[in-house]
Amino acid sequence: MAPVEITIEQLRPALVLLDFAGVAVFALTGALAAARAKQTIITFAFFAAITGIGGGTLRDLLIGAPVFWVRRPDYLLVCFGVAALAWVIHADRWPRRALVWLDAIGMAAFAVVGAAKTLGFGLAPLVAIVMGVLTATFGGIIRDVLAGEPSMLLGPEIYISAAVVSAAVYVALTVLGVPLLAAGILGALSGFALRAAAIKFNLKLPGYRR
Amino acid sequence: MAPVEITIEQLRPALVLLDFAGVAVFALTGALAAARAKQTIITFAFFAAITGIGGGTLRDLLIGAPVFWVRRPDYLLVCFGVAALAWVIHADRWPRRALVWLDAIGMAAFAVVGAAKTLGFGLAPLVAIVMGVLTATFGGIIRDVLAGEPSMLLGPEIYISAAVVSAAVYVALTVLGVPLLAAGILGALSGFALRAAAIKFNLKLPGYRR
Amino acid sequence: MAPVEITIEQLRPALVLLDFAGVAVFALTGALAAARAKQTIITFAFFAAITGIGGGTLRDLLIGAPVFWVRRPDYLLVCFGVAALAWVIHADRWPRRALVWLDAIGMAAFAVVGAAKTLGFGLAPLVAIVMGVLTATFGGIIRDVLAGEPSMLLGPEIYISAAVVSAAVYVALTVLGVPLLAAGILGALSGFALRAAAIKFNLKLPGYRR
Repeated sequence: MAPVEITIEQLRPALVLLDFAGVAVFALTGALAAARAKQTIITFAFFAAITGIGGGTLRDLLIGAPVFWVRRPDYLLVCFGVAALAWVIHADRWPRRALVWLDAIGMAAFAVVGAAKTLGFGLAPLVAIVMGVLTATFGGIIRDVLAGEPSMLLGPEIYISAAVVSAAVYVALTVLGVPLLAAGILGALSGFALRAAAIKFNLKLPGYRR
Repeated sequence: MAPVEITIEQLRPALVLLDFAGVAVFALTGALAAARAKQTIITFAFFAAITGIGGGTLRDLLIGAPVFWVRRPDYLLVCFGVAALAWVIHADRWPRRALVWLDAIGMAAFAVVGAAKTLGFGLAPLVAIVMGVLTATFGGIIRDVLAGEPSMLLGPEIYISAAVVSAAVYVALTVLGVPLLAAGILGALSGFALRAAAIKFNLKLPGYRR
Repeated sequence: MAPVEITIEQLRPALVLLDFAGVAVFALTGALAAARAKQTIITFAFFAAITGIGGGTLRDLLIGAPVFWVRRPDYLLVCFGVAALAWVIHADRWPRRALVWLDAIGMAAFAVVGAAKTLGFGLAPLVAIVMGVLTATFGGIIRDVLAGEPSMLLGPEIYISAAVVSAAVYVALTVLGVPLLAAGILGALSGFALRAAAIKFNLKLPGYRR
């Protein structure tokens, strides 16, 4: 029920950086969804927080860890700060392309962070990969459902699959004994590379055909 | 992982009353959403329970508390009783205005209860405010998503913001040393007053403009 | 917080069978929802897992049990295997009727499994019934919300009510001292029989009328 908790902090400072970067970037995508819907500052904050910390929250609930932001209010502050900033600087005027790339960074970062924390709890590699993917994608899915937008995540877009690659590469390298930092960088890069190729060359996964 | 649990009961009997009032009122709004959709008695019960205890359930999961209604079936009984009553007495014939006011009471009550329980767990003021807001709003959001209705909570309506005021006033007064009961009453009243003014004078938060 | 955990395995091997059967059947309905939406293999896997293990996951979070599939990756493997199989053998060409019947089996199985696990945690009969119903229905509700389909579960269909019957019969018989295995079989059969009658004779619950 309560295994020795290994926090992201203990794993590697690099992971903390990845974690905060992911939270900030996803919070921004949440705030922009609120902007598209001409929402209020309150909804900006709400969407930023759900998107920024939703995935990690689900991961922590599932693996039985204390929810990461509940005892560290700085995560909430990042989300609310990003929401206020997005409102003030009119971040929705940025080229949409910029956002897509930022989002790709957040996805790759969160997939590794989620997998790393799960392995740190002594859970199986398959479970760690699934948790990495959930960490990277759940916040965005909730954002889309609440905003009433069709979820990019549930289409032919190569997005969840890139998160699978990041998490799987990290987990595989770790199991093979590669140092955590190197495994984390390689994991994040490989998923990011796949996502980048998908964005650049407009690659899609094939849909099911009868 | 498992801090000394301070239940709402130990805090103040007044909070228990607020808590049950909030559950009953929100359960009623859930049942009425089912009525609008010409649903069955089963869906009445389902919506009443999700709306009545959904917010507190999320709060308890997040702060690591045992979910409040799991060991106290009387909360479920209140939800199911309200659902049956709403069906029998045709509560949906009530003027819509009555419901809006009841809902405002539930919102103010839950925001204080959620914040109080979270502070009782030794968590930070900012986290307590967020939990108060979640307790007050999450059930209604789920109700709206499931019923396929556009969520009033995610519009210009001054609703989440009133919950922020209730929770923040309670937390601020508590931190300043005001006795819990007084802080609770003042917190609930201030958020209710803001919501009341918003209903009466049709105040809205400004939406984002490019 | 952490009562002595009684796993489904310790209760009865028959329940394990019911549990895996339920996961497989629900995973199949998830994969088929993905097929109807012409989704990718990734979304097949995602929907299969959410539908197959979503209900039990919510149950475990609520009763404070370790989430059942987190330490037993074979549940995930069943979901992913079913998703791949559904893709390869074009399971969506099966008559829709076959699926409705499989789904009825899963519902009856999960209602009993959920109620049994909850009673095993020492929780009240009413709570056990509610947990049985959640276990049987929550995965399907999430599947429908994510797929953007109107949820059969929230209509006049006799579905949730059949889950109520299965869980309630199981709990009542257990409280009366009937051996678990017999209670489980009778519980599953009674809910299945109601659902079967509803399918066969097109029975519906009456909707609310003003």
